[in-house]
Formats: sequence, C-alpha cells, structure tokens
Amino acid sequence: MISEYNILNCFQYLVENKPDDIVLVGSGDDAAVIKAQEKDLVHSVDISKINTHFPEDSLPEDIAYRSVAVALSDLAAMGAYPSFISIGLTSNIKEIDWYKNFTKGVEKILEEYQIKLVGGDITFGEMNICVNVFGYPYNKIITRSGAKKGDLICLTGSLGKGRQGLTDWKNNKNSSYVEYFFRPKIHFDKSMIISAQTLVTSCIDISDGLVKDLGNICKSSGVGAEVLIDKIPIINDINDLTYGDDYELCFTINRNAEDWNDIHGFVVIGTITDSASKIEFKENNKPINFIKDGWDSFK
Amino acid sequence: MISEYNILNCFQYLVENKPDDIVLVGSGDDAAVIKAQEKDLVHSVDISKINTHFPEDSLPEDIAYRSVAVALSDLAAMGAYPSFISIGLTSNIKEIDWYKNFTKGVEKILEEYQIKLVGGDITFGEMNICVNVFGYPYNKIITRSGAKKGDLICLTGSLGKGRQGLTDWKNNKNSSYVEYFFRPKIHFDKSMIISAQTLVTSCIDISDGLVKDLGNICKSSGVGAEVLIDKIPIINDINDLTYGDDYELCFTINRNAEDWNDIHGFVVIGTITDSASKIEFKENNKPINFIKDGWDSFK
Repeated sequence: MISEYNILNCFQYLVENKPDDIVLVGSGDDAAVIKAQEKDLVHSVDISKINTHFPEDSLPEDIAYRSVAVALSDLAAMGAYPSFISIGLTSNIKEIDWYKNFTKGVEKILEEYQIKLVGGDITFGEMNICVNVFGYPYNKIITRSGAKKGDLICLTGSLGKGRQGLTDWKNNKNSSYVEYFFRPKIHFDKSMIISAQTLVTSCIDISDGLVKDLGNICKSSGVGAEVLIDKIPIINDINDLTYGDDYELCFTINRNAEDWNDIHGFVVIGTITDSASKIEFKENNKPINFIKDGWDSFK
Repeated sequence: MISEYNILNCFQYLVENKPDDIVLVGSGDDAAVIKAQEKDLVHSVDISKINTHFPEDSLPEDIAYRSVAVALSDLAAMGAYPSFISIGLTSNIKEIDWYKNFTKGVEKILEEYQIKLVGGDITFGEMNICVNVFGYPYNKIITRSGAKKGDLICLTGSLGKGRQGLTDWKNNKNSSYVEYFFRPKIHFDKSMIISAQTLVTSCIDISDGLVKDLGNICKSSGVGAEVLIDKIPIINDINDLTYGDDYELCFTINRNAEDWNDIHGFVVIGTITDSASKIEFKENNKPINFIKDGWDSFK
C-alpha cells in the first residue's frame, strides 16, 4: 500500500530546496515562501476533473501537463507571465508508477515555461487536479471589462484544434491535433505582444468556446458584438465556435480595421457594439442565428 | 438543474469588485490581481476531502469553515498572518441551498480573520475543497528545519480537543469540544508572539498529531527529541499525542527551561537531542515506548 508520504517523495525532487530569486522556502515545510516582488501578483485556480476535463484513460503525463497548461492560460489572458505554481492532487490510483509519470508531466511543463513548483497537497479520492498558478504582468493587466463600442475584436489563431485532437485520440488516430488537446501551447508570446498595445481594451482565453468567452467580455464590459463568421479561421465546422479547449486569446482593441488587420498574425473577426450582451453573427454580410436562445444560455 | 454559473453567483458577493489595498482585480475575471507588497508571500495548499477530513453529513457551513481554518493553520505555523485565500470547490450536491450555506461558512471565517476571497473554481464531482491560503510574515519566517540540540520543545495548548469534538458530534453530544473539530481556532495571536522571539528555531502545527509533527521537525532539522509525557496537557488519553486535528503550535526555542517555562501560557514538554530523527518519550522520568516501530511508520 502506498502512502501520501511515498507519493510526496515522487514530487519532492521537483521542488528545489535551495533558495533562489523567487522561492525562499520550497516544499517540505508548512508553506512556501516567495520573495517579495515589485510587481502585482496575478493568481488563478483551475480544477481539472477526470471524465469532465480529460478522459479517464489519459496518460498520467498528459493529465499533469494538460491540467497545468489550461490553468496557465488564465495568466496569458490577463497579460501576465507565469512564475510559479502549486498543485492540490486528489487521486485514487494505487500504483506509485502513476505518480512518477504524473510528476514527469509536471516536470515537462515546468521546464517548458521555466516556472517553479512551490508546493501542494495530495489526498486519496476521485481524480481531481487543482492547479494554482501565479504570475506577474508583462505590462498592464488586461481584464475582460474594458471593451468599448467600435473596438475591433481579434483572435490569435484558429479554433477547433483541441476538439479535433480529442476526436482523433478517441478514434485512435495519431494526428497532429492530439497534441493540441493533451499538451496545448499557452500563448504567452502573444499575451506579451497584446499587453504591450496601449489601445488593447480587454482579453480572454478561448477555453469555453468563442461564443461563451466573447460573451463574457461583452457581459463584463456592458457591450455587444458583431462577429463576421467568414473571418474566423476554423478547423472543422461552425461548432468550433462553441466547443472550447483552444486556448487562443480573444481581445479587443481601439483601432481601425485598416491599421490593424492581421498584424502579428492576429485576425480581426468583428466589432464591439453597444447592444448590451448581444452577439450578432454574420455570414456573407447577412445575420445568421446558429445558436438558439443566444449565447447566454449556451453551455 | 443548477449550473456552475448559478453556483458562482452564490460566491460572487463575497468577492468585492472594487479595488482596495490588497485586491486590485477580484473574481469574475480570468485571474485575480493582488497588489505588490513589500513583504515575502507565504502560500500553502490544503485539500479537505469528504469522509477523510470531515464526515459526509457535516453541515455545509462547517465544511467551509473547517476547510479554510485548517488551511490557514499552515500560515500560523510559519509565523505568517493571513491576507487572502482562493478556493477550488468540487461537489456533487445539486441543491443551490447547500452552496449558499457553504458560502456563509466561507463568509464567517473571512470576517473572523479579516481576510479576502480573491477567486476560485467550481466543478462537479466527489466533494473536495482545495483551499489556497496566502499571508505575510509577522517577523521572521519560522521553518521546520532550524531545531538544534538543547532547544526546548514548547506547545501552545492542550491536545485531544478536536478528537473529542468529533467523538461527541458522532454521539450527538452537544459538548463544547464539537466546536474544536468543526470550527478550530487558528492561533495567529500565538504565532505572532512566537515569531517575535529571536531565539525560536522551528515551528509546526499539530494537524497530524504531536508525534508525527514533532517527528517532522526532527527529520527536517536532523535532530531527535526527548519528550516528557507528564508535561503535555491532554484531554483524553495517550492517543491524543498521535491523533491530530488540534491546530496548536509546537515550536523549539534556544532557551533555558527556567527562563522560559510557561511564559505566555506555552508549556515546555521536552528537549531537542542529537539522536537523529529519534523521539524518546518519558513518563515519571522513565522511558516508555507507546508507539510501535517508532514515529516514522506511524499513520
């Protein structure tokens, strides 16, 4: 029978105990101590649950990587770079190898983004990974609530990749999309560029689908949106607009379309309007209604 | 059918949206933004799981209060005061009233310690509360690893109260101990006093029982301990030394027993020795061995 002590030992080597510029006291004590920084702290919590956020037969490395990645995405959406994380892991797996492989997934993503694991907790139960992420602003913080009438709505990349990845994986198809589901890239490079634009007014990540997430910008900002569906790069079909799992960024900017279109590879997909919380979709310049009862009741 | 959106609305009122000295951006965005402080940040994660950390028929207010309280205890153990928290809540309860009452428990403890909820996440599944706590040092940080041979071992209060509280609650006995289990007081006042002592060398909270927790100090510090059982204030019997759920603090200090005994109401219960990781218990000045195979294999 493995104990929490055995499992904690798996993770221990990930947490460096020698003090550095960021972590003064690492794991193994009652709490971690992080050196005072001159920048504001950006913090988010994200739970990934078995069968809700990933299939139960996912590899432990993938579960770990994906759980941390999707949590980091919230920092990118605020215009913040990642610095450290902590993990609350609940799992009913009894094999120590599972935890060793889970730890490899954590190690991989720590290396990839050059961030540190500062602590966590482990308990037995239905699998559930609560990932806490911490970062600091690149420039200014970009909230969801600053969009104004006339702002352009921009997207950092195509939609539907995560959805296609999960479908391919379920069909045992070894496509390049599978990586997008299990090891999504978080666009900190794009977040840095966006947050440096003085005229950017709001930003969100497309974790719950463009329709819902742009809806959240509209709700928080008290505005509406007109979206040109023809402009949106999609992989599959119109359901890519509502599916989520893409981790591209959607942001608004107070610019003219002529100046801004496709700069930095970002695509202008529409304009903010003053019709509160209403999103109108157009195809070939004609209104279409592909979501019943509007975005608010979707999902 | 309630949705995560309905539940989030329950919590929303706890998160003030107007910026203040600590929270610049509260819940409702991708992440919270906490104003830069001059002090180092102390952070810990603690998972409370149904049937492991609290009985399944506990009241939602009590589940919330207890989960946050036991997490805060790790800050007190470091010599840190609490500032803000975030919560990752997993629950399979379908009644919105449960979440409203859970929220009341969170609100109660926020008020009691004058701390803020800065965000969180909610998902459906086996009940699991991942509480993230954040604070700043009162004075110096007290780790587990500074105990030295000859240091006095001190305890801030009696052991067994939480254990007795749970027993009484299970027997439908409305004793004063029940509160100790469901609404444990976290001793930040004592933490402040301890951390102000320049000669304090280590500290831990008694969440897993004195034997295991003092064992952790010994392990981290590379020392041993001699404990005088007669000196320890206990409620029930010798099992109070191994049970946990007390949230008193155990600390070591480089002082003479004559100078220090019972100052501030703290009790000297033994001395640090140089026999690495070995705890010897004495009763009436004679060694006793009440834990088979030593503390390391206990629990």
